[in-house]
Amino acid sequence: MQPVKIGLLGLGTVGGGTATVLSRNAGEIARRLGRDIVITAAATLQPERARELGLAPATVTTDAEAVVDNPECEIIVELIGGYEPARALVLRALENGKHVVTANKALIAMHGEEIFQTARDNNATVAYEAAVGGGIPIIKAAREGLAANRIDWVAGIINGTGNFILTEMREKGRDFAAALQAAQALGYAEADPTFDIEGIDAAHKLTILAAIAFGVPLRFEACYTEGISGVSAEDVAYAEELGYRIKHLGIARRAAAGIEMRVHPALVPAQTLLANVDGVMNAVLVMADAAGPTMYYGAGAGAEPTASAVVADIIDVARARERESKHNVPLLGFRPDAVGDDPALPISAIETPYYLRMTAADRPGVLAEVTAILGRAAISIEAVIQKDPQKDSQNNPKEKAEGGEQAQIIMLTQTVKEAQMHRAIADIEQLPAIRGAVKRIRVEPLAR
Amino acid sequence: MQPVKIGLLGLGTVGGGTATVLSRNAGEIARRLGRDIVITAAATLQPERARELGLAPATVTTDAEAVVDNPECEIIVELIGGYEPARALVLRALENGKHVVTANKALIAMHGEEIFQTARDNNATVAYEAAVGGGIPIIKAAREGLAANRIDWVAGIINGTGNFILTEMREKGRDFAAALQAAQALGYAEADPTFDIEGIDAAHKLTILAAIAFGVPLRFEACYTEGISGVSAEDVAYAEELGYRIKHLGIARRAAAGIEMRVHPALVPAQTLLANVDGVMNAVLVMADAAGPTMYYGAGAGAEPTASAVVADIIDVARARERESKHNVPLLGFRPDAVGDDPALPISAIETPYYLRMTAADRPGVLAEVTAILGRAAISIEAVIQKDPQKDSQNNPKEKAEGGEQAQIIMLTQTVKEAQMHRAIADIEQLPAIRGAVKRIRVEPLAR
Repeated sequence: MQPVKIGLLGLGTVGGGTATVLSRNAGEIARRLGRDIVITAAATLQPERARELGLAPATVTTDAEAVVDNPECEIIVELIGGYEPARALVLRALENGKHVVTANKALIAMHGEEIFQTARDNNATVAYEAAVGGGIPIIKAAREGLAANRIDWVAGIINGTGNFILTEMREKGRDFAAALQAAQALGYAEADPTFDIEGIDAAHKLTILAAIAFGVPLRFEACYTEGISGVSAEDVAYAEELGYRIKHLGIARRAAAGIEMRVHPALVPAQTLLANVDGVMNAVLVMADAAGPTMYYGAGAGAEPTASAVVADIIDVARARERESKHNVPLLGFRPDAVGDDPALPISAIETPYYLRMTAADRPGVLAEVTAILGRAAISIEAVIQKDPQKDSQNNPKEKAEGGEQAQIIMLTQTVKEAQMHRAIADIEQLPAIRGAVKRIRVEPLAR
Repeated sequence: MQPVKIGLLGLGTVGGGTATVLSRNAGEIARRLGRDIVITAAATLQPERARELGLAPATVTTDAEAVVDNPECEIIVELIGGYEPARALVLRALENGKHVVTANKALIAMHGEEIFQTARDNNATVAYEAAVGGGIPIIKAAREGLAANRIDWVAGIINGTGNFILTEMREKGRDFAAALQAAQALGYAEADPTFDIEGIDAAHKLTILAAIAFGVPLRFEACYTEGISGVSAEDVAYAEELGYRIKHLGIARRAAAGIEMRVHPALVPAQTLLANVDGVMNAVLVMADAAGPTMYYGAGAGAEPTASAVVADIIDVARARERESKHNVPLLGFRPDAVGDDPALPISAIETPYYLRMTAADRPGVLAEVTAILGRAAISIEAVIQKDPQKDSQNNPKEKAEGGEQAQIIMLTQTVKEAQMHRAIADIEQLPAIRGAVKRIRVEPLAR
């Protein structure tokens, strides 16, 4: 089948990430879509950037209108950001009958109604998953996944910079200014951080979420916006003492009298998941009448997370344009002719750290015997707890007859292959000082 | 436009929930879909159940094949569960050219390849969002939302019964048997809990997730399955001491040699979000190369959460059948002609609890003056912290000149209307004993 031909406007952070993801994951994407996605034209004011990204020189121009007017490009991907010239270029692309994918929250929140009407008038579509929550498919979840629900409210941590600052304040006891400096030093905050810390960026995103959740117009001007610059280190500490954490929330709620939309610092109960979303991560909690609470968590910004959403939108738009089959999305995500033959691994081939617990006679040298077995098997120990001996219980006459006191040995190992661990455990269980079976539970660090 | 006519197989927990959600949210669903969804026929062995649900008697039968063969029904919704007769009915529906929506994880995990091939042969589709994670749109997220990614691994708490038991063990120090009894008493575990506690239900779901994540066949038989009945109260306590929590995880990972699929208890670092998913809730963490980690959380079972996914699938299938417009999903989720005119509320109309912090002269009676103002404004106080007075700082000569010592008063109020709180704060700031502005941050309990 013909490749999907896209025109890319902007090769900044997100534009570069999009080019990278399209290139690196070309195979995986074609396995799902059944077509290749090619960058037919790209507009940038920094042509050297196109070279860094390995784009063919012929496709690169400084003239964004030329891309929008290029008859080869079916989908225009707007990654310039801001109101203008993004608005004019998007409208022109739609008037040319092209579909648009954009990551531009400001544009959608402010000019979405005009843009969507232009799309409908020209039988084109606009996809904007990347505008909210970066790599989290929150637009898809709210717009399609929860389509059976009456949504009651949405509460989200939808600005990573602000969340990083509040997390720094809590974890390191820093005041706002110091935490902002740390964010700037790490590149999480811009030199002028106003959009992030004063809640304007979050208000753009909340405007979009509210429209989708409740079926109301995009009304950025009605969104109450309060930043986090007034939150002090003392407030963070007192909130903790009261059982809360301070988060910068975007909240949209369907109240009896109308729709609440507000971005402001808020105390959130410390035991909730949302209170535990830290650093630059984002999360959106949606309360819906049938599904109940659902939460969506991930990286809210960054080159590749945002590109993940941009490219998912390109795939969606490309699929919606194919009408020869009712199987719009392949049944298992990948196309049947692209299903892989990777073997399914047996459990013996798997590697994890291990938690081990064993009951041992309380006499000197037992721990050394156990660690010697692990050492010979090249299994490193991460932590050991040895519990004070306990008198043999009344319920265990056999043990009692042996007259010994018992200790519990608990260990965390480093990563080890399942089969190797099993052999070592068998050896440990042969030790005369070890009573009964060694209990073992795998550890999943959940790290990348 | 014509309504979408569905045939419902089964009026048990999920079937009843689906009928309820379709009825209660008919308006909201039509605002999104542009069509009504009507239950044209329903099969149940308990006709009295149909009466309880308010279904028209004419549509109800005990003959499931009659529903599958009913020429009026465009979509067959299979909510019987188990392998047979669900498999035979689904195949027959597909051979009749009807689309199928199912919540049946066992059926898809075991017979998915046969069912999907039959669907393709008959140009029909099968939707199964409800088969994994109940109301969480995890199939949509993995299949479409992350379509740009190479997925590295998936780790999920995908059985609510098991998670409830492990949560009870941790929170109440119960042993496995007592926690299982509690789950049974609350209706979270069946009389025969084998499928849940031995990980079979989780393995069905993991089989589906692995196929979608990696583009491999459905291979339930290759999934390693280990239950939680061997986890003891001691292990839970020791894990906590080591900085971990024990969760029953389903893990699918793309390793160099092939695909790992395994369900077993695992120690998970206590500070991760997944470790903090408690009770009957489910969550799936997906590690993808571009998006990074994303997590999807919600109710993994229950009548209405599962119905939320079933109805979302009905809407998706109905939209995919309409081909007159490229706007498959309305741009803001709701159809433009159904956008509401709910007013956007000003911040003054909003009600939340409040955190207040003020600096006061450290003399008797100040707290009484403050609480009197709040009392007159009918604002109840939830908690008060009064901090020991501190000497006026060197940097505040004005305060020092007044010679007073200062105390900090921190309060949590109950829910109060914004405007009312502002008036009370203004009054408090007029008190001679109060120094400077009263700091106020809203509290968001995030409760339903």
